[in-house]
Amino acid sequence: MKYTVITGASSGIGYESALAFAARGKNLIIAARRMEELDTLKSKVAEINADLDVVIRTVDLSVTANVYEFYESLRKYQIETWINNAGFGNFASVGEQNLNKIESMLHLNIEALTILSSLYVRDYAQVAGTQIINVSSGGGYLIVADAVTYCATKFYVSAFTEGLAQELKGNGASLQAKVLAPAATETEFAKRALDLDDIQYEGVIPKYHTAKEMAGFMLELYDSDKVVGIVDGETYEFQLKDPIYPYVTRTR
Amino acid sequence: MKYTVITGASSGIGYESALAFAARGKNLIIAARRMEELDTLKSKVAEINADLDVVIRTVDLSVTANVYEFYESLRKYQIETWINNAGFGNFASVGEQNLNKIESMLHLNIEALTILSSLYVRDYAQVAGTQIINVSSGGGYLIVADAVTYCATKFYVSAFTEGLAQELKGNGASLQAKVLAPAATETEFAKRALDLDDIQYEGVIPKYHTAKEMAGFMLELYDSDKVVGIVDGETYEFQLKDPIYPYVTRTR
Repeated sequence: MKYTVITGASSGIGYESALAFAARGKNLIIAARRMEELDTLKSKVAEINADLDVVIRTVDLSVTANVYEFYESLRKYQIETWINNAGFGNFASVGEQNLNKIESMLHLNIEALTILSSLYVRDYAQVAGTQIINVSSGGGYLIVADAVTYCATKFYVSAFTEGLAQELKGNGASLQAKVLAPAATETEFAKRALDLDDIQYEGVIPKYHTAKEMAGFMLELYDSDKVVGIVDGETYEFQLKDPIYPYVTRTR
Repeated sequence: MKYTVITGASSGIGYESALAFAARGKNLIIAARRMEELDTLKSKVAEINADLDVVIRTVDLSVTANVYEFYESLRKYQIETWINNAGFGNFASVGEQNLNKIESMLHLNIEALTILSSLYVRDYAQVAGTQIINVSSGGGYLIVADAVTYCATKFYVSAFTEGLAQELKGNGASLQAKVLAPAATETEFAKRALDLDDIQYEGVIPKYHTAKEMAGFMLELYDSDKVVGIVDGETYEFQLKDPIYPYVTRTR
Protein backbone atom coordinates (compact mmCIF):
# COMPACT_ATOMS: atom_id res chain seq x y z
CA MET A 1 0.00 0.00 0.00
CA LYS A 2 1.36 3.37 -1.09
CA TYR A 3 0.98 6.74 0.60
CA THR A 4 1.15 10.44 -0.25
CA VAL A 5 2.69 12.54 2.54
CA ILE A 6 1.52 16.15 2.85
CA THR A 7 2.95 18.48 5.51
CA GLY A 8 1.03 21.58 6.56
CA ALA A 9 -2.19 19.72 5.74
CA SER A 10 -4.40 21.38 8.34
CA SER A 11 -5.42 24.26 6.05
CA GLY A 12 -4.93 26.01 2.74
CA ILE A 13 -3.10 24.37 -0.16
CA GLY A 14 -2.05 21.38 1.96
CA TYR A 15 -5.63 20.65 3.05
CA GLU A 16 -7.09 20.96 -0.45
CA SER A 17 -4.23 18.95 -1.97
CA ALA A 18 -4.97 16.14 0.46
CA LEU A 19 -8.58 16.10 -0.77
CA ALA A 20 -7.40 16.23 -4.40
CA PHE A 21 -5.01 13.27 -3.95
CA ALA A 22 -7.77 11.39 -2.09
CA ALA A 23 -10.05 11.94 -5.09
CA ARG A 24 -7.31 10.19 -7.11
CA GLY A 25 -7.53 7.22 -4.74
CA LYS A 26 -4.29 7.92 -2.88
CA ASN A 27 -3.79 6.88 0.74
CA LEU A 28 -2.59 9.80 2.82
CA ILE A 29 -0.20 10.68 5.61
CA ILE A 30 -1.25 14.17 6.72
CA ALA A 31 0.88 16.21 9.10
CA ALA A 32 0.41 19.55 10.86
CA ARG A 33 0.43 21.04 14.35
CA ARG A 34 -3.35 21.09 14.76
CA MET A 35 -5.06 17.76 15.54
CA GLU A 36 -8.64 18.97 15.16
CA GLU A 37 -8.19 20.17 11.59
CA LEU A 38 -6.46 16.92 10.63
CA ASP A 39 -9.36 14.95 12.12
CA THR A 40 -11.84 17.00 10.09
CA LEU A 41 -9.76 16.37 6.98
CA LYS A 42 -9.71 12.64 7.69
CA SER A 43 -13.52 12.63 7.92
CA LYS A 44 -13.81 14.51 4.63
CA VAL A 45 -11.50 11.99 2.97
CA ALA A 46 -13.68 9.16 4.29
CA GLU A 47 -16.68 10.81 2.59
CA ILE A 48 -14.78 10.85 -0.72
CA ASN A 49 -13.54 7.27 -0.46
CA ALA A 50 -14.05 5.15 2.63
CA ASP A 51 -11.45 2.62 1.47
CA LEU A 52 -8.53 5.03 1.78
CA ASP A 53 -6.17 4.86 4.72
CA VAL A 54 -5.41 8.23 6.31
CA VAL A 55 -2.55 8.45 8.82
CA ILE A 56 -2.40 11.54 11.04
CA ARG A 57 0.78 13.03 12.52
CA THR A 58 0.62 16.11 14.75
CA VAL A 59 4.03 17.71 14.67
CA ASP A 60 5.67 21.14 14.78
CA LEU A 61 8.26 20.89 12.02
CA SER A 62 9.90 24.19 12.99
CA VAL A 63 11.65 22.19 15.74
CA THR A 64 14.48 20.22 14.13
CA ALA A 65 14.38 17.21 16.49
CA ASN A 66 10.71 16.73 15.57
CA VAL A 67 11.61 16.59 11.88
CA TYR A 68 13.80 13.52 12.27
CA GLU A 69 11.32 11.89 14.64
CA PHE A 70 8.49 12.52 12.16
CA TYR A 71 10.42 10.91 9.29
CA GLU A 72 11.44 7.93 11.44
CA SER A 73 7.81 7.40 12.49
CA LEU A 74 6.92 6.78 8.83
CA ARG A 75 9.54 4.07 8.14
CA LYS A 76 6.90 1.33 7.93
CA TYR A 77 4.94 3.07 5.15
CA GLN A 78 5.75 2.93 1.46
CA ILE A 79 5.72 6.55 0.35
CA GLU A 80 4.90 7.23 -3.28
CA THR A 81 4.81 11.03 -3.11
CA TRP A 82 6.26 13.45 -0.57
CA ILE A 83 4.89 17.00 -0.53
CA ASN A 84 6.74 19.55 1.62
CA ASN A 85 3.97 22.11 1.85
CA ALA A 86 4.39 23.37 5.45
CA GLY A 87 5.73 26.92 5.56
CA PHE A 88 4.80 30.44 6.52
CA GLY A 89 5.59 34.00 5.57
CA ASN A 90 6.33 37.28 7.23
CA PHE A 91 5.52 40.77 5.98
CA ALA A 92 7.87 43.30 7.61
CA SER A 93 10.99 45.25 6.76
CA VAL A 94 14.30 43.58 7.66
CA GLY A 95 14.96 46.18 10.36
CA GLU A 96 11.56 45.71 11.96
CA GLN A 97 11.06 41.97 11.66
CA ASN A 98 10.47 39.82 14.73
CA LEU A 99 13.55 37.61 14.93
CA ASN A 100 11.85 34.84 16.90
CA LYS A 101 9.30 34.51 14.13
CA ILE A 102 12.06 34.71 11.50
CA GLU A 103 14.00 31.88 13.18
CA SER A 104 10.89 29.66 13.17
CA MET A 105 10.34 30.56 9.52
CA LEU A 106 13.93 29.61 8.60
CA HIS A 107 13.61 26.32 10.50
CA LEU A 108 10.31 25.39 8.85
CA ASN A 109 10.68 26.77 5.32
CA ILE A 110 14.35 25.80 4.90
CA GLU A 111 15.72 23.36 7.48
CA ALA A 112 12.75 20.98 7.79
CA LEU A 113 12.28 20.96 4.01
CA THR A 114 15.98 20.21 3.46
CA ILE A 115 16.14 17.40 6.02
CA LEU A 116 12.91 15.75 4.84
CA SER A 117 13.90 16.05 1.18
CA SER A 118 17.36 14.59 1.85
CA LEU A 119 15.97 11.65 3.85
CA TYR A 120 13.30 10.93 1.24
CA VAL A 121 15.86 11.08 -1.61
CA ARG A 122 18.18 8.78 0.34
CA ASP A 123 15.43 6.13 0.67
CA TYR A 124 13.43 6.53 -2.57
CA ALA A 125 15.74 7.82 -5.34
CA GLN A 126 15.58 4.46 -7.12
CA VAL A 127 11.88 3.69 -6.57
CA ALA A 128 9.79 3.93 -9.76
CA GLY A 129 6.87 6.34 -9.78
CA THR A 130 7.97 8.40 -6.79
CA GLN A 131 7.86 12.20 -6.62
CA ILE A 132 8.85 14.93 -4.20
CA ILE A 133 7.05 18.25 -4.58
CA ASN A 134 8.30 21.25 -2.61
CA VAL A 135 6.03 24.26 -2.28
CA SER A 136 7.91 27.46 -3.01
CA SER A 137 6.31 30.73 -4.14
CA GLY A 138 6.40 33.31 -6.91
CA GLY A 139 8.56 35.01 -4.26
CA GLY A 140 11.13 32.29 -4.88
CA TYR A 141 11.79 33.85 -8.29
CA LEU A 142 11.34 37.55 -7.61
CA ILE A 143 11.81 39.55 -4.44
CA VAL A 144 8.72 41.25 -3.03
CA ALA A 145 9.14 44.44 -0.98
CA ASP A 146 8.41 44.04 2.75
CA ALA A 147 8.72 40.28 2.39
CA VAL A 148 12.46 40.12 1.69
CA THR A 149 13.40 37.45 4.23
CA TYR A 150 10.39 35.29 3.34
CA CYS A 151 11.24 35.55 -0.37
CA ALA A 152 14.87 34.63 0.39
CA THR A 153 13.62 31.41 2.05
CA LYS A 154 11.67 30.67 -1.14
CA PHE A 155 14.69 31.43 -3.37
CA TYR A 156 16.36 28.74 -1.28
CA VAL A 157 13.46 26.30 -1.83
CA SER A 158 13.38 26.95 -5.58
CA ALA A 159 17.15 26.63 -6.07
CA PHE A 160 17.39 23.58 -3.81
CA THR A 161 14.51 21.77 -5.51
CA GLU A 162 15.43 22.68 -9.08
CA GLY A 163 19.02 21.60 -8.34
CA LEU A 164 17.78 18.36 -6.81
CA ALA A 165 15.59 17.71 -9.87
CA GLN A 166 18.59 18.19 -12.17
CA GLU A 167 20.81 16.06 -9.96
CA LEU A 168 18.29 13.19 -9.92
CA LYS A 169 17.86 13.35 -13.71
CA GLY A 170 21.64 13.47 -14.16
CA ASN A 171 22.03 10.35 -12.01
CA GLY A 172 19.26 8.49 -13.86
CA ALA A 173 17.20 8.27 -10.66
CA SER A 174 13.52 7.24 -10.77
CA LEU A 175 12.43 9.88 -8.24
CA GLN A 176 11.28 13.19 -9.75
CA ALA A 177 11.62 16.46 -7.82
CA LYS A 178 9.30 19.38 -8.58
CA VAL A 179 8.62 22.93 -7.37
CA LEU A 180 5.16 24.45 -7.00
CA ALA A 181 5.24 28.26 -6.95
CA PRO A 182 1.87 29.82 -6.09
CA ALA A 183 1.14 33.55 -6.10
CA ALA A 184 -1.46 35.03 -3.72
CA THR A 185 -3.81 32.27 -2.58
CA GLU A 186 -6.81 32.49 -0.29
CA THR A 187 -5.47 30.61 2.72
CA GLU A 188 -4.39 31.39 6.28
CA PHE A 189 -1.01 32.47 4.83
CA ALA A 190 -1.52 36.26 4.80
CA LYS A 191 -3.15 36.16 8.25
CA ARG A 192 -0.08 34.48 9.74
CA ALA A 193 2.38 36.58 7.73
CA LEU A 194 0.74 39.77 9.00
CA ASP A 195 -0.09 38.50 12.50
CA LEU A 196 -3.77 39.29 11.94
CA ASP A 197 -6.85 37.50 13.27
CA ASP A 198 -8.64 37.59 9.95
CA ILE A 199 -8.20 38.82 6.41
CA GLN A 200 -10.60 39.53 3.58
CA TYR A 201 -9.62 38.37 0.09
CA GLU A 202 -12.69 38.98 -2.07
CA GLY A 203 -12.91 42.60 -3.25
CA VAL A 204 -9.66 43.50 -1.39
CA ILE A 205 -6.82 41.44 -2.86
CA PRO A 206 -6.93 42.30 -6.59
CA LYS A 207 -5.99 38.81 -7.79
CA TYR A 208 -5.68 35.48 -6.06
CA HIS A 209 -6.41 31.79 -6.40
CA THR A 210 -8.43 29.72 -4.01
CA ALA A 211 -6.59 26.90 -2.23
CA LYS A 212 -8.75 24.48 -4.19
CA GLU A 213 -7.57 25.98 -7.49
CA MET A 214 -3.96 25.64 -6.31
CA ALA A 215 -4.58 21.99 -5.39
CA GLY A 216 -5.73 21.51 -9.00
CA PHE A 217 -2.45 23.04 -10.19
CA MET A 218 -0.56 20.75 -7.78
CA LEU A 219 -2.14 17.77 -9.59
CA GLU A 220 -1.29 19.25 -13.00
CA LEU A 221 2.33 19.49 -11.88
CA TYR A 222 2.16 15.96 -10.44
CA ASP A 223 0.89 14.62 -13.78
CA SER A 224 3.45 16.45 -15.91
CA ASP A 225 7.11 15.80 -16.67
CA LYS A 226 8.03 19.43 -15.98
CA VAL A 227 10.00 20.54 -12.93
CA VAL A 228 8.36 23.89 -12.13
CA GLY A 229 4.67 24.74 -11.79
CA ILE A 230 4.40 28.48 -11.36
CA VAL A 231 1.57 31.01 -11.21
CA ASP A 232 2.34 34.09 -13.34
CA GLY A 233 2.22 37.05 -10.94
CA GLU A 234 0.62 39.29 -13.58
CA THR A 235 -1.92 37.13 -15.36
CA TYR A 236 -2.43 34.50 -12.64
CA GLU A 237 -2.11 31.83 -15.29
CA PHE A 238 -0.58 28.54 -14.14
CA GLN A 239 2.42 27.46 -16.21
CA LEU A 240 4.42 24.23 -16.29
CA LYS A 241 8.09 24.92 -16.99
CA ASP A 242 11.55 23.48 -17.23
CA PRO A 243 13.97 24.55 -14.46
CA ILE A 244 14.28 28.35 -14.36
CA TYR A 245 17.65 28.83 -12.63
CA PRO A 246 20.87 28.05 -14.51
CA TYR A 247 22.56 24.79 -13.55
CA VAL A 248 26.13 23.83 -14.37
CA THR A 249 28.17 20.74 -13.79
CA ARG A 250 31.30 21.74 -11.93
CA THR A 251 34.38 22.04 -14.11
CA ARG A 252 36.51 23.87 -11.56
CA MET B 1 36.19 55.64 17.00
CA LYS B 2 34.68 53.51 14.23
CA TYR B 3 35.09 49.81 13.55
CA THR B 4 34.79 47.33 10.70
CA VAL B 5 33.40 43.95 11.79
CA ILE B 6 34.50 40.89 9.82
CA THR B 7 33.19 37.41 10.65
CA GLY B 8 35.12 34.34 9.52
CA ALA B 9 38.32 36.40 9.77
CA SER B 10 40.66 33.55 10.74
CA SER B 11 41.47 32.61 7.13
CA GLY B 12 40.73 33.16 3.47
CA ILE B 13 38.76 36.15 2.21
CA GLY B 14 37.91 37.30 5.76
CA TYR B 15 41.55 37.31 6.85
CA GLU B 16 42.78 39.16 3.76
CA SER B 17 39.87 41.61 3.90
CA ALA B 18 40.83 42.45 7.49
CA LEU B 19 44.36 43.30 6.30
CA ALA B 20 42.94 45.31 3.38
CA PHE B 21 40.65 47.37 5.66
CA ALA B 22 43.55 47.85 8.08
CA ALA B 23 45.64 49.24 5.20
CA ARG B 24 42.80 51.78 4.81
CA GLY B 25 43.24 52.78 8.45
CA LYS B 26 40.11 51.00 9.73
CA ASN B 27 39.87 49.71 13.28
CA LEU B 28 38.72 46.11 13.30
CA ILE B 29 36.51 43.68 15.16
CA ILE B 30 37.55 40.25 13.93
CA ALA B 31 35.53 37.15 14.75
CA ALA B 32 36.05 33.43 14.14
CA ARG B 33 36.22 30.17 16.06
CA ARG B 34 40.03 29.94 16.12
CA MET B 35 41.83 32.20 18.62
CA GLU B 36 45.36 31.53 17.37
CA GLU B 37 44.67 32.67 13.81
CA LEU B 38 42.95 35.83 15.07
CA ASP B 39 45.98 36.57 17.28
CA THR B 40 48.28 36.19 14.27
CA LEU B 41 46.01 38.50 12.27
CA LYS B 42 46.08 41.06 15.07
CA SER B 43 49.91 41.02 15.02
CA LYS B 44 49.95 41.48 11.25
CA VAL B 45 47.58 44.43 11.54
CA ALA B 46 49.91 45.97 14.16
CA GLU B 47 52.75 45.72 11.63
CA ILE B 48 50.64 47.61 9.07
CA ASN B 49 49.50 50.32 11.47
CA ALA B 50 50.25 50.21 15.18
CA ASP B 51 47.62 52.88 15.91
CA LEU B 52 44.71 50.69 14.92
CA ASP B 53 42.53 49.02 17.53
CA VAL B 54 41.82 45.36 16.85
CA VAL B 55 39.12 43.64 18.91
CA ILE B 56 39.03 39.84 18.88
CA ARG B 57 35.94 37.69 19.39
CA THR B 58 36.18 33.89 19.32
CA VAL B 59 32.74 32.57 18.53
CA ASP B 60 31.04 29.73 16.70
CA LEU B 61 28.26 31.51 14.80
CA SER B 62 26.64 28.25 13.71
CA VAL B 63 25.11 28.18 17.23
CA THR B 64 22.23 30.65 17.28
CA ALA B 65 22.52 31.68 20.94
CA ASN B 66 26.15 32.70 20.26
CA VAL B 67 25.02 34.97 17.45
CA TYR B 68 22.93 37.19 19.72
CA GLU B 69 25.59 37.14 22.44
CA PHE B 70 28.23 38.17 19.89
CA TYR B 71 26.16 41.10 18.66
CA GLU B 72 25.34 42.22 22.22
CA SER B 73 29.04 42.11 23.16
CA LEU B 74 29.69 44.79 20.52
CA ARG B 75 27.09 47.30 21.74
CA LYS B 76 29.75 49.71 23.02
CA TYR B 77 31.50 49.99 19.63
CA GLN B 78 30.46 52.26 16.80
CA ILE B 79 30.34 50.01 13.76
CA GLU B 80 30.91 51.63 10.39
CA THR B 81 30.95 48.47 8.28
CA TRP B 82 29.62 45.00 8.97
CA ILE B 83 30.91 42.14 6.82
CA ASN B 84 29.15 38.77 7.13
CA ASN B 85 31.88 36.62 5.63
CA ALA B 86 31.66 33.48 7.79
CA GLY B 87 30.26 30.53 5.87
CA PHE B 88 31.18 27.16 4.50
CA GLY B 89 30.24 24.83 1.67
CA ASN B 90 29.55 21.20 1.11
CA PHE B 91 30.19 19.14 -2.01
CA ALA B 92 27.92 16.08 -2.06
CA SER B 93 24.70 14.96 -3.69
CA VAL B 94 21.49 15.69 -1.76
CA GLY B 95 20.93 11.99 -1.11
CA GLU B 96 24.45 11.49 0.25
CA GLN B 97 25.01 14.68 2.20
CA ASN B 98 25.84 14.60 5.91
CA LEU B 99 22.82 16.19 7.56
CA ASN B 100 24.70 17.30 10.69
CA LYS B 101 27.07 19.28 8.49
CA ILE B 102 24.14 20.61 6.43
CA GLU B 103 22.38 21.84 9.58
CA SER B 104 25.53 23.70 10.68
CA MET B 105 25.82 25.16 7.19
CA LEU B 106 22.21 26.38 7.25
CA HIS B 107 22.72 27.92 10.69
CA LEU B 108 25.92 29.71 9.72
CA ASN B 109 25.30 30.67 6.08
CA ILE B 110 21.63 31.64 6.54
CA GLU B 111 20.49 32.04 10.15
CA ALA B 112 23.51 33.85 11.63
CA LEU B 113 23.74 36.11 8.58
CA THR B 114 20.04 36.97 8.82
CA ILE B 115 20.10 37.70 12.54
CA LEU B 116 23.29 39.80 12.38
CA SER B 117 22.04 41.70 9.31
CA SER B 118 18.68 42.41 10.95
CA LEU B 119 20.24 43.62 14.21
CA TYR B 120 22.76 45.81 12.38
CA VAL B 121 20.02 47.32 10.16
CA ARG B 122 17.88 47.97 13.23
CA ASP B 123 20.69 49.95 14.88
CA TYR B 124 22.48 51.58 11.93
CA ALA B 125 19.97 52.14 9.08
CA GLN B 126 20.08 55.91 9.64
CA VAL B 127 23.83 56.27 10.31
CA ALA B 128 25.71 58.01 7.47
CA GLY B 129 28.57 56.15 5.84
CA THR B 130 27.61 52.70 7.08
CA GLN B 131 27.66 49.55 4.96
CA ILE B 132 26.76 45.90 5.34
CA ILE B 133 28.47 43.49 2.96
CA ASN B 134 27.29 39.87 2.83
CA VAL B 135 29.52 37.32 1.17
CA SER B 136 27.51 35.12 -1.19
CA SER B 137 28.98 33.21 -4.14
CA GLY B 138 28.67 32.77 -7.88
CA GLY B 139 26.65 29.78 -6.62
CA GLY B 140 24.09 32.29 -5.34
CA TYR B 141 23.18 33.02 -8.96
CA LEU B 142 23.60 29.65 -10.62
CA ILE B 143 23.27 26.15 -9.24
CA VAL B 144 26.42 24.02 -9.32
CA ALA B 145 26.06 20.23 -9.54
CA ASP B 146 27.03 18.36 -6.36
CA ALA B 147 26.78 21.59 -4.39
CA VAL B 148 23.02 22.05 -4.62
CA THR B 149 22.30 22.68 -0.94
CA TYR B 150 25.30 25.01 -0.56
CA CYS B 151 24.20 26.97 -3.65
CA ALA B 152 20.65 27.19 -2.26
CA THR B 153 22.07 28.84 0.89
CA LYS B 154 23.83 31.36 -1.34
CA PHE B 155 20.66 31.99 -3.41
CA TYR B 156 19.18 32.90 -0.01
CA VAL B 157 22.08 35.24 0.80
CA SER B 158 21.91 36.95 -2.60
CA ALA B 159 18.14 37.41 -2.57
CA PHE B 160 18.10 38.52 1.08
CA THR B 161 20.90 41.04 0.61
CA GLU B 162 19.73 42.40 -2.74
CA GLY B 163 16.23 42.76 -1.28
CA LEU B 164 17.64 44.51 1.79
CA ALA B 165 19.63 46.88 -0.44
CA GLN B 166 16.48 47.79 -2.36
CA GLU B 167 14.44 48.14 0.82
CA LEU B 168 17.03 50.49 2.38
CA LYS B 169 17.20 52.61 -0.79
CA GLY B 170 13.41 52.71 -0.97
CA ASN B 171 13.23 53.94 2.62
CA GLY B 172 15.90 56.60 2.08
CA ALA B 173 18.17 54.91 4.64
CA SER B 174 21.85 55.87 4.92
CA LEU B 175 23.03 52.29 5.32
CA GLN B 176 24.02 50.54 2.07
CA ALA B 177 23.73 46.75 1.69
CA LYS B 178 25.95 44.90 -0.78
CA VAL B 179 26.63 41.35 -1.98
CA LEU B 180 30.09 39.98 -2.80
CA ALA B 181 29.91 36.88 -5.01
CA PRO B 182 33.31 35.19 -5.46
CA ALA B 183 33.96 32.22 -7.72
CA ALA B 184 36.66 29.67 -6.86
CA THR B 185 39.14 31.26 -4.44
CA GLU B 186 42.28 29.77 -2.95
CA THR B 187 41.16 29.48 0.69
CA GLU B 188 40.29 26.71 3.15
CA PHE B 189 36.81 26.64 1.57
CA ALA B 190 37.22 23.62 -0.73
CA LYS B 191 39.08 21.70 1.99
CA ARG B 192 36.16 22.08 4.38
CA ALA B 193 33.53 21.53 1.68
CA LEU B 194 35.17 18.26 0.70
CA ASP B 195 36.25 17.22 4.23
CA LEU B 196 39.86 16.97 3.06
CA ASP B 197 43.03 17.70 4.99
CA ASP B 198 44.60 19.64 2.18
CA ILE B 199 43.92 20.73 -1.35
CA GLN B 200 46.09 21.87 -4.23
CA TYR B 201 44.94 24.88 -6.27
CA GLU B 202 47.84 25.68 -8.58
CA GLY B 203 47.90 23.46 -11.66
CA VAL B 204 44.74 21.58 -10.52
CA ILE B 205 41.89 24.08 -10.29
CA PRO B 206 41.76 25.60 -13.80
CA LYS B 207 40.83 29.11 -12.65
CA TYR B 208 40.70 30.77 -9.26
CA HIS B 209 41.50 33.96 -7.40
CA THR B 210 43.71 34.24 -4.38
CA ALA B 211 42.05 35.41 -1.17
CA LYS B 212 44.13 38.59 -1.44
CA GLU B 213 42.71 39.31 -4.90
CA MET B 214 39.19 38.80 -3.51
CA ALA B 215 39.95 41.21 -0.66
CA GLY B 216 40.88 43.76 -3.33
CA PHE B 217 37.50 43.17 -5.00
CA MET B 218 35.82 43.53 -1.60
CA LEU B 219 37.33 47.04 -1.35
CA GLU B 220 36.24 47.86 -4.93
CA LEU B 221 32.69 46.93 -3.95
CA TYR B 222 33.02 48.91 -0.72
CA ASP B 223 34.10 52.00 -2.66
CA SER B 224 31.37 51.73 -5.29
CA ASP B 225 27.69 52.61 -5.27
CA LYS B 226 26.74 49.29 -6.83
CA VAL B 227 24.94 46.54 -4.92
CA VAL B 228 26.57 43.41 -6.38
CA GLY B 229 30.26 42.60 -6.84
CA ILE B 230 30.48 39.33 -8.73
CA VAL B 231 33.25 37.28 -10.28
CA ASP B 232 32.29 36.05 -13.75
CA GLY B 233 32.48 32.25 -13.61
CA GLU B 234 33.84 32.04 -17.16
CA THR B 235 36.32 34.89 -17.47
CA TYR B 236 37.07 35.39 -13.76
CA GLU B 237 36.65 39.11 -14.29
CA PHE B 238 35.26 41.03 -11.31
CA GLN B 239 32.15 43.07 -12.14
CA LEU B 240 30.22 45.68 -10.15
CA LYS B 241 26.51 45.46 -10.91
CA ASP B 242 23.05 46.69 -10.00
CA PRO B 243 20.81 44.13 -8.29
CA ILE B 244 20.43 41.02 -10.43
CA TYR B 245 17.16 39.53 -9.11
CA PRO B 246 13.84 41.19 -9.95
CA TYR B 247 12.29 43.23 -7.13
CA VAL B 248 8.68 44.39 -6.98
CA THR B 249 6.74 46.47 -4.54
CA ARG B 250 3.70 44.51 -3.46
CA THR B 251 0.48 45.48 -5.20
CA ARG B 252 -1.53 42.49 -4.08
